[in-house]
Amino acid sequence: MKGYFITFEGIDGCGKSTQADLLEQSLKARGCDVTHTFEPGGTALGRKLRPILTDGGTELSLFAEVLLFAADRRQDMDEVILPALGRGCVVIGERFADSSIVYQGVAGNVGRDRVRNLMNIVTDGLVPDLTFLLDIAPEQSLARKTSLDRIEQRDRFLGIARQAYLELAHEDAARFVVLDASRAIEALSQDILDSALLRLEHRRYDHV
Amino acid sequence: MKGYFITFEGIDGCGKSTQADLLEQSLKARGCDVTHTFEPGGTALGRKLRPILTDGGTELSLFAEVLLFAADRRQDMDEVILPALGRGCVVIGERFADSSIVYQGVAGNVGRDRVRNLMNIVTDGLVPDLTFLLDIAPEQSLARKTSLDRIEQRDRFLGIARQAYLELAHEDAARFVVLDASRAIEALSQDILDSALLRLEHRRYDHV
Repeated sequence: MKGYFITFEGIDGCGKSTQADLLEQSLKARGCDVTHTFEPGGTALGRKLRPILTDGGTELSLFAEVLLFAADRRQDMDEVILPALGRGCVVIGERFADSSIVYQGVAGNVGRDRVRNLMNIVTDGLVPDLTFLLDIAPEQSLARKTSLDRIEQRDRFLGIARQAYLELAHEDAARFVVLDASRAIEALSQDILDSALLRLEHRRYDHV
Repeated sequence: MKGYFITFEGIDGCGKSTQADLLEQSLKARGCDVTHTFEPGGTALGRKLRPILTDGGTELSLFAEVLLFAADRRQDMDEVILPALGRGCVVIGERFADSSIVYQGVAGNVGRDRVRNLMNIVTDGLVPDLTFLLDIAPEQSLARKTSLDRIEQRDRFLGIARQAYLELAHEDAARFVVLDASRAIEALSQDILDSALLRLEHRRYDHV
C-alpha cells in the first residue's frame, strides 16, 4: 500500500506547526503510521541551512534563496518523504513546493511560473495528496509571533503571499482545503482531522 | 560595452585555478578590467556551503547536492558575475553550469537533461562566451592533488566526467576550446592567453 502525503501551508504565524502536531497525534492515536517533517530543518542538511536562510547575516539573492529551500526540500524528499511514502506511511509536511511558489515566486518577484517550473524538476512532480491552507490575515498572524525572523520582517509581502496561496487553492480545489486559521485551535484541529480521515478513507493512489 | 564571460572547466586536478590565475594576471597586465570568481566559494554564501559540499559529514542526496551548487552559482551570478558583465568586465569563472551537467548529471546519474533543464532555469540561460576545457586523464589529475576531498574520492566517476566534458565540447564547438592539460603550465597558459585575446578582439555581444 502506498502512503499519503499531507501538507500544511499558510503565511508565517498561521499555526501550521501546532495543527500539524495535533493531526499527527490524532492519527497516531488511531493507529496510523505517521511521519512528520518540516522545512527548512527536517534533516541534518536543513538544520545547517536554516541559519543561513533566517539569520540575515549572509548576502542572499532571492533566487539563491529559492535554490537553498529547494536543496533542503529535495534532501527531505530523498531522506524522509519518499522512503516513508514507500513504506505506506502518512507523511505530514509543514510547507512544500507551494511555499516557494508563493513566497519567492509571487511575493518575492522571482516569478511564479519560473519557480513552479523549477519545483517541478526539483520534486520530480511529487504533489501532496492533500494540502491544508491555514488562511489568516497578516496582522493576526504576526501578532502571534514573539520573534520576527528575516522572512517575517517582510510583512509587506505577507498580504501578497496570502492572496497567492488563495489563488493556488482555487486552481487546485481537489487538493486544497482552505480553513479560517483565526478560529480556536481545537475547533480548527477537529475540522482538519475530519477532513484528513475522510480523504484517507478515499485515498488516491496516484502520487508515485 | 558589455563584458565577456570566460570559464574554465575540467576534472579535479586539471589545473583550472592555476590557469585562471595566470590568465587573470596576463589580461590585467594588458589593461583589461578582470573579475575572477570560482565556485563553490566565491561568495559569503559559497564559503558557508563549501564545507557542507565537501566534508562528507552531512547526508546529502545527489540531487540536493546539485541544488546547493545551483544556489551558490546563482548567488555568484547575482553578486559577482552579472554586475561585472554589466560594467563591461572580463569575468573569469572556475566552473559553471557545465560542471553540474557533467558531475551530477552524467557521472552522478541525476540525469544529464534534468540537470541541463534545471541549469537553464537557474542561470536564466546565461552561457559563457568562451570555455576552456582542460582535458587530462584522471590518473594524472589525481596524482597532482595532495588531499582528496569528498568529490575527488569518487575517482571512478572522473573518467566518466572527462568523457562527458568532451561530449559537451563537441556539441558546442563554437564556445569550447579543448586543451591538453598534461602539458607544461607555461605552454598551456600561453595558448589560453592567445585564444582569449583572439576571441576578445572578435567578442560576441549576445550574452545578456
